Amino acid sequence: MAVRVGVLGTGRIGRMHASIVAQQLQDAELAVVYDADVGVAQRVGRDFGVPVAGSVDEVLADPSVDAVAICTPTGLHADQVVAAAGAGKAIFCEKPVSLELSQVVRALNAVRDAGVPFLIGFNQRFDPGHGAVAAAVRDGRIGHPQLVRITSRDTEPPPVEYARGSGGIFLDMTIHDFDMARFVVGSEVLEVYAAGAVLISPELGAIDDFDTVVVTLVHENGCLTTIDGSRRAVYGYDQRVEAFGSAGVVVSENPHVNAAVVRDEHGSHGATLNFPFLDRYAMSYVAEWAEFVSAVRERRTPSVSVDDALPPVLIALAAGISIREHRPVSIAEIVEASCPASGQSALDFRA
Amino acid sequence: MAVRVGVLGTGRIGRMHASIVAQQLQDAELAVVYDADVGVAQRVGRDFGVPVAGSVDEVLADPSVDAVAICTPTGLHADQVVAAAGAGKAIFCEKPVSLELSQVVRALNAVRDAGVPFLIGFNQRFDPGHGAVAAAVRDGRIGHPQLVRITSRDTEPPPVEYARGSGGIFLDMTIHDFDMARFVVGSEVLEVYAAGAVLISPELGAIDDFDTVVVTLVHENGCLTTIDGSRRAVYGYDQRVEAFGSAGVVVSENPHVNAAVVRDEHGSHGATLNFPFLDRYAMSYVAEWAEFVSAVRERRTPSVSVDDALPPVLIALAAGISIREHRPVSIAEIVEASCPASGQSALDFRA
Amino acid sequence: MAVRVGVLGTGRIGRMHASIVAQQLQDAELAVVYDADVGVAQRVGRDFGVPVAGSVDEVLADPSVDAVAICTPTGLHADQVVAAAGAGKAIFCEKPVSLELSQVVRALNAVRDAGVPFLIGFNQRFDPGHGAVAAAVRDGRIGHPQLVRITSRDTEPPPVEYARGSGGIFLDMTIHDFDMARFVVGSEVLEVYAAGAVLISPELGAIDDFDTVVVTLVHENGCLTTIDGSRRAVYGYDQRVEAFGSAGVVVSENPHVNAAVVRDEHGSHGATLNFPFLDRYAMSYVAEWAEFVSAVRERRTPSVSVDDALPPVLIALAAGISIREHRPVSIAEIVEASCPASGQSALDFRA
Amino acid sequence: MAVRVGVLGTGRIGRMHASIVAQQLQDAELAVVYDADVGVAQRVGRDFGVPVAGSVDEVLADPSVDAVAICTPTGLHADQVVAAAGAGKAIFCEKPVSLELSQVVRALNAVRDAGVPFLIGFNQRFDPGHGAVAAAVRDGRIGHPQLVRITSRDTEPPPVEYARGSGGIFLDMTIHDFDMARFVVGSEVLEVYAAGAVLISPELGAIDDFDTVVVTLVHENGCLTTIDGSRRAVYGYDQRVEAFGSAGVVVSENPHVNAAVVRDEHGSHGATLNFPFLDRYAMSYVAEWAEFVSAVRERRTPSVSVDDALPPVLIALAAGISIREHRPVSIAEIVEASCPASGQSALDFRA
Repeated sequence: MAVRVGVLGTGRIGRMHASIVAQQLQDAELAVVYDADVGVAQRVGRDFGVPVAGSVDEVLADPSVDAVAICTPTGLHADQVVAAAGAGKAIFCEKPVSLELSQVVRALNAVRDAGVPFLIGFNQRFDPGHGAVAAAVRDGRIGHPQLVRITSRDTEPPPVEYARGSGGIFLDMTIHDFDMARFVVGSEVLEVYAAGAVLISPELGAIDDFDTVVVTLVHENGCLTTIDGSRRAVYGYDQRVEAFGSAGVVVSENPHVNAAVVRDEHGSHGATLNFPFLDRYAMSYVAEWAEFVSAVRERRTPSVSVDDALPPVLIALAAGISIREHRPVSIAEIVEASCPASGQSALDFRA
Repeated sequence: MAVRVGVLGTGRIGRMHASIVAQQLQDAELAVVYDADVGVAQRVGRDFGVPVAGSVDEVLADPSVDAVAICTPTGLHADQVVAAAGAGKAIFCEKPVSLELSQVVRALNAVRDAGVPFLIGFNQRFDPGHGAVAAAVRDGRIGHPQLVRITSRDTEPPPVEYARGSGGIFLDMTIHDFDMARFVVGSEVLEVYAAGAVLISPELGAIDDFDTVVVTLVHENGCLTTIDGSRRAVYGYDQRVEAFGSAGVVVSENPHVNAAVVRDEHGSHGATLNFPFLDRYAMSYVAEWAEFVSAVRERRTPSVSVDDALPPVLIALAAGISIREHRPVSIAEIVEASCPASGQSALDFRA
Repeated sequence: MAVRVGVLGTGRIGRMHASIVAQQLQDAELAVVYDADVGVAQRVGRDFGVPVAGSVDEVLADPSVDAVAICTPTGLHADQVVAAAGAGKAIFCEKPVSLELSQVVRALNAVRDAGVPFLIGFNQRFDPGHGAVAAAVRDGRIGHPQLVRITSRDTEPPPVEYARGSGGIFLDMTIHDFDMARFVVGSEVLEVYAAGAVLISPELGAIDDFDTVVVTLVHENGCLTTIDGSRRAVYGYDQRVEAFGSAGVVVSENPHVNAAVVRDEHGSHGATLNFPFLDRYAMSYVAEWAEFVSAVRERRTPSVSVDDALPPVLIALAAGISIREHRPVSIAEIVEASCPASGQSALDFRA
Repeated sequence: MAVRVGVLGTGRIGRMHASIVAQQLQDAELAVVYDADVGVAQRVGRDFGVPVAGSVDEVLADPSVDAVAICTPTGLHADQVVAAAGAGKAIFCEKPVSLELSQVVRALNAVRDAGVPFLIGFNQRFDPGHGAVAAAVRDGRIGHPQLVRITSRDTEPPPVEYARGSGGIFLDMTIHDFDMARFVVGSEVLEVYAAGAVLISPELGAIDDFDTVVVTLVHENGCLTTIDGSRRAVYGYDQRVEAFGSAGVVVSENPHVNAAVVRDEHGSHGATLNFPFLDRYAMSYVAEWAEFVSAVRERRTPSVSVDDALPPVLIALAAGISIREHRPVSIAEIVEASCPASGQSALDFRA
């Protein structure tokens, strides 16, 4: 039986998820959509031939709905995760769960208590190239990982109103790279050092955000990761991952728009990279959904789940303190600051 | 209003076309399917939620059907093209129209008389890489084309029963490359020389077919094209096009399964190429359909149409004679042999 | 003890050989140079600090000279090979030995009779990339070879006076590719088909030569080789070799002038290929000399020797007949034409 | 007239420089060699046919010697620079001038006072790929530089005795990368943050050195540079430079040992990178010497000279403090610490 999915929030990203569920998966079907903007929801409902719900509660109360995709604004994620978990629905949640640590913890605890399948939307793990890098490390093909480099360059800065509510570049953009570092290295991050600049968008500088950043991560196993991030690469969406180890190196390069190369008397000339991130990562979103649907059908934990939802938020918060206080910041410091009284930290999901 | 398409023939390739029409196009919808094997048709109809017709005539008689996709065995194409043209339907026809020259001519004349939009299924023109090669030539980026090389290597020989009815390697496989040569060079082929061997599949040799071929084409504008074809490349589907000219060269390389490369003490190691041709050319089929649907809506001739359907068949027939008679064969010879009496050749579609 | 080398002919190619012997080899030293143009010889002698001989005989009579490099015009090679063999010198001979078959045979027989080490200057075998292709085939990494493609594109047509005496494009330029085909496939050529055009240099056309050619070779082991050759690639010296077989494919790509690539909003941009062939093949010439010197010191046959000197000439002659008579030509036909009376062919060096 | 060069120190690197001067330059000749180990000097003298001096003073006193190449152990560089400057010789000095800041300043001041041409041996600037990266930035092809990444991975850790006297990984190995950052970005470094680990060679850890490092540099113009360095890449010498800016990116990739790629059913397989750094950078050393000789002949300052000798040492010292004190360190702090009393810093060579 197909997994019936309700999509909450049908803006750009929610519409894309609805389209994958409706059209590209064998074992899933789009059951219902909801958006606070009724007109937006109706357009998506019409395009994919599914009903529009009047509220989140209506979706959660529908016994024929097996799973929800939470694609609403970040500020609503935590409450919706808690409600969906309470309703016993499987949950596909866009990243991050929340910009506030306490909310992340509350939501993840609700998921744990309910025992429902939960996938956190770090889709880049499902990119064929990046996935092959992580697999090469896991399979020992490069030996013990020693140095990881992640290139993370977007094509345009976000509108400043969006950026204002996004938690800044670390919680909005490089959070994917923090997850990638954990995924590729296979070891938790202990310490963060971040440097940054405003070289592209003075508007971002005006709200104390950055558009150009460099982050150094120290992992438990001794590996060092560097991430360089930019809000604007004019040549297309540039996303590469490289893992260097005792027995070799593995690199995931960008695909080009097409594979044609012209050579003339001036040199060789190829296509640009892909521009919109939805194009660059189209395959990853489908693979991400395939993993979620398969996990729901097999009643198992998805490959990127509760234990992966919190650490990137911790790293992003540490990076924010590091760049402002101009010093390396340990993850332990962030955890302790958030729950000073607890001996057994509420954040330790791995215990 | 969406273009409503009936798919005739729902085997492997027909099912793929049905799936594109049903799921991946904005302006088209799958109206009905038909297959001589009712069970096969019913499975496809159920999967895409459309009715199954009891006969081709039933599809052609349906006034709500705007276009048909002819995906039946080659031997049926010509009659179905004639019938569909007579019914005023737009026609998407898998290649080739027929293995017999007279049938090709009859079918194309019917299309001309009816004035319906007609697309012949040389999907490889719509591959982003090969398309960029042709565009580079057309735009003058490599100057006057002088040498073209086409690499055309399949992943497995066909079953011998299939091969027997396919007209041989030139009409079945390299016909795509003959079309590509015309498309990229932008000039008709005058003469063909073919050499071949049986190195992979003795069964193919036993029915006087070849599995390994090299073809030299001489174009009207002086350009020379070489094609090398093989029925089995163990490393994946290998399809490259290179055009060399007075001002440069343009090359379309194969995409890899993924972009990750491992380097170790033995060297560098990347992924294979894609294996099934449906994967290698997935994007090209969607782009081909987009062109067809747009042409139908705009009531114009598709970019690969009547004038492109016959020449590759002529080249394939010339290649067959060349390889058996061990000599270069001109296209004029094939045309003259087929209509000895006519002063104004019935084949001259460009007049 | 170092091998003492006399260089006969110190034009562009002879001067380069003198420079390698003088400066880049451990176990060889430049002993003396000779050129019919005394001024040219004196300049080279001065630059490398060696004496200038007054005649070829003077060089051959010098007991301290172990080996000669024959870099004179092609018409003089055969006589000089015979004389050097008679004098017991090891011989490094630029290709081809002669444009006339009978002269090639006479010279090679003299070498055989004298038993001196002889290397024929097919330097491209020593290119690291092409050499790795041949090694991959020899080692079975691609299985049984089935299709070989050789790209051979020069950067400028030769002066017409030079071309007139060169024997035409097949004996002057593609002779390297004929040797490469034998080297890579590891099997003799049985038959040749050549097509050609004059698209670059009408002057070459005026002397019945071609500037653009495509050649198909059929090998004894069933492999088919295609060569495409051009006298002018505006983007640099383009020399690639690809061998496809039952277990894979191996490709040797061109090195670029440098490895830097720029990406901007228009795409990616890299350097041209190398322009002068002396740059493209610099490493190959040094490796060729290392092989020759090592063979002389070890009193063994060099890796490219008497048995390799004749076949490329035969293939070139067959290609010339093929392109003019517009038909495939067998090597056997060339051999028989050259020695009609002999039952046991004088050309059969492999017997 | 050729520039006559005396080589001081004929160990591995000195012998290589002697060989370039003796054999590969048009306008220079090797005049004399000296080494504290007479046997070593005699072997080099014999191989290149030049006399061996009994002392450095003997070389400096020889009026026929125009220039010296200082290739002795680092601890001797400063005194020899001062002596050579006093003798009016042009100076080619291997990096670094000294591990002690005061010695660097003393030596550079002597060079300034004498007005002799001086080249500091940052040969990697002369690599064709890295040079093309720097040129692309200088020419504005990538706009304003924002992010630079340098990959610097050696093939084997040095012997621990060598490492002990080398000043550690920052002064011995990454000093080249500190120079490269200045060269490519075209702007001075203001601040350094370094992280490191001992993952390869516990012996290096035992002498408080590191084998794996990551360095973040902040430049005056706002650009951020990251360097990752390792003492052992098992796949060959890995040296890449990437500059990202407002208008694009430019990347210098590693050349491979050869350009052949095999594809089989498991994927694609290419050669390793070059192993010994002398191979990887062979062309750069020759180009470096060409620049030096040309500067001496034209009595001008070489392109990498006095102003470039000190900053990489300052950056290396700052990196050493950063990694030990676990904090970002400004270059200003290093300068002030070295000359606490001086208002006008003795180190400010750019004033």
